[in-house]
Amino acid sequence: MELLKKTLSGIADIDRRAGEQAQLRLDSLAKPPGSLGVLEEIAVQLAAIQGKALPVLGKKVVMVMAADHGVVEEGVSAFPQEVTQQMVMNFLNHGAAINVLSDQAKAQVVVSDVGIKGEAIQHEELHIRKVRPGTGNMVKEAAMTEEEVRAAIEVGISMVNREIDRGATIVATGEMGIGNTTSSAAILACITGQDLELITGRGTGIDDEGLIRKRKAIKNAIEVNQPNAADPVEVLRKVGGLEIAALTGVIIGAAARKVPVVIDGFISSTAALLAYKLNPHCKSYMIASHLSQEPGHKILLEEIGLKPILQLDLRLGEGTGAVLAFNLIEAAIKIISEMATFAEAGVSNKD
Amino acid sequence: MELLKKTLSGIADIDRRAGEQAQLRLDSLAKPPGSLGVLEEIAVQLAAIQGKALPVLGKKVVMVMAADHGVVEEGVSAFPQEVTQQMVMNFLNHGAAINVLSDQAKAQVVVSDVGIKGEAIQHEELHIRKVRPGTGNMVKEAAMTEEEVRAAIEVGISMVNREIDRGATIVATGEMGIGNTTSSAAILACITGQDLELITGRGTGIDDEGLIRKRKAIKNAIEVNQPNAADPVEVLRKVGGLEIAALTGVIIGAAARKVPVVIDGFISSTAALLAYKLNPHCKSYMIASHLSQEPGHKILLEEIGLKPILQLDLRLGEGTGAVLAFNLIEAAIKIISEMATFAEAGVSNKD
Repeated sequence: MELLKKTLSGIADIDRRAGEQAQLRLDSLAKPPGSLGVLEEIAVQLAAIQGKALPVLGKKVVMVMAADHGVVEEGVSAFPQEVTQQMVMNFLNHGAAINVLSDQAKAQVVVSDVGIKGEAIQHEELHIRKVRPGTGNMVKEAAMTEEEVRAAIEVGISMVNREIDRGATIVATGEMGIGNTTSSAAILACITGQDLELITGRGTGIDDEGLIRKRKAIKNAIEVNQPNAADPVEVLRKVGGLEIAALTGVIIGAAARKVPVVIDGFISSTAALLAYKLNPHCKSYMIASHLSQEPGHKILLEEIGLKPILQLDLRLGEGTGAVLAFNLIEAAIKIISEMATFAEAGVSNKD
Repeated sequence: MELLKKTLSGIADIDRRAGEQAQLRLDSLAKPPGSLGVLEEIAVQLAAIQGKALPVLGKKVVMVMAADHGVVEEGVSAFPQEVTQQMVMNFLNHGAAINVLSDQAKAQVVVSDVGIKGEAIQHEELHIRKVRPGTGNMVKEAAMTEEEVRAAIEVGISMVNREIDRGATIVATGEMGIGNTTSSAAILACITGQDLELITGRGTGIDDEGLIRKRKAIKNAIEVNQPNAADPVEVLRKVGGLEIAALTGVIIGAAARKVPVVIDGFISSTAALLAYKLNPHCKSYMIASHLSQEPGHKILLEEIGLKPILQLDLRLGEGTGAVLAFNLIEAAIKIISEMATFAEAGVSNKD
């Protein structure tokens, strides 16, 4: 059986009994019940994912998937296409925001080239899993072939399996790909039927004219390709991106291994929506890290039914929001593991 | 000159020029301008507070002020009064949420007794600065005398000066005091004239009948004491609390020393409002850590003009939300200090 099908069929529901046990433990700690809000919810979710009342966390990894987008030739981005490759070099040289924040969070950054255009980057830390050098321009043709989209998803699955085999206990999604808010908005439009005015934003900061070009490109791409909204892989193939496909694979792969996956911003959440549509159990393994400035992000998270932890007006991607959330997730684990109970602390409980 | 007056007159505006230089630096880093949202705002604020384009952070301290409230005899709290003392023992034994989260944030917890009732706690880590054993019941009399309220504010000033002298580069506010959401709501009602229905919440989780008693107690306390809304110290003296006074002192003291002060939840924000009313420059030194579940908190922060970093549905106090924000503040510092610029990274800038 192919890796994608096998992985999808291997995703099970979380252990709600362990989640309930975690909630009992939280209620025994010397604090008003529920008073640690979202931290308590995270602790319960992690308990249910890991199937133990006292969840634990070890190695943290952010899976950064990079690729280029054919649609960039329509003038949809504020930055030129070569920035994908340049920023990946910056990641590998540890100079980017994702490196700085991962260093603080003590998380490892794992960068994969799923389809960057231009001369191949030679670097020992880069995983070269190039499916094709950038997608086709979706305004004129399908972004990928059937074989390519499956290969790109499977890059994500195999990369996340590799990292889990090497000790990752929680993974975050990250990406780099000039043009990828365009592909993400196209996917979101296909699946939800939402108005392009509502879900298309300025990405890295395109001007008013560029925003009009961007909406037009998405509209044309959907008309040319006519993706079947009920088939997430077809939507991904026709108007998606190689890195979005790989992130979909990362999420599916993590869920199949019962590893929590922290979702970054707009692009990562598009992958999360696709993973959720492929197998609804995936949602239980997801933690939405933040609500980005990109206008479609809120709609995306609501479509999945996820509540973001942070609202920091970020719109950088790379995995930065997800890595910032690692600290709060670890705080939740420490709370449930280390706080004294009412009995241990000799504190009187509620009247 | 008395310490309070001297400290208030020593608070200067922040260095906006340094803030502008920080923004220039942020705009030179290899990312779309403004794409790190709130992290960029924090970096700029810290630069302006410290008067240097590249702010730095060292030792972090959370100043926990504890005291009791006479108004508790009106049946306004879900927990009995002895919990103040019991929880302070829990802090000193490192079993509470504030200890666990401070351990994660590598912050030091400094606990002061400004007026706990009952037998004195003997513990080498406790700073005994007892002004009186709990306030008077504000429904029947002023909570404090003029001498007491000044002494309590000055406990905060002297304690924060002590910690800054010992190396603190950023401080957070924390508190423990059964009944203190009642005093906080009373202060807020006096200063803003807001409807008690809107600003009185369930605190540690009081039931419907208790909530009615709580609103009635606040209403009666204001009628009995008739505090002058234009005089923050009078409001604090008549319907406030010893730990709220001490936290007002912490904020004033930190601002006078040009040290950023991270404000926790509802009670701490009441102290922040008082500090702001005493000297509006104080606001520039404040970072609002989170928006709590307590309904008056949003109104309080809007009254000062502060935007909370986190929205985690916390309602525990102790300083927990403030300490959780330390990590994001440090992330902001690391971003401005460690990220590569467009030039350094060889990344093409916007078209």
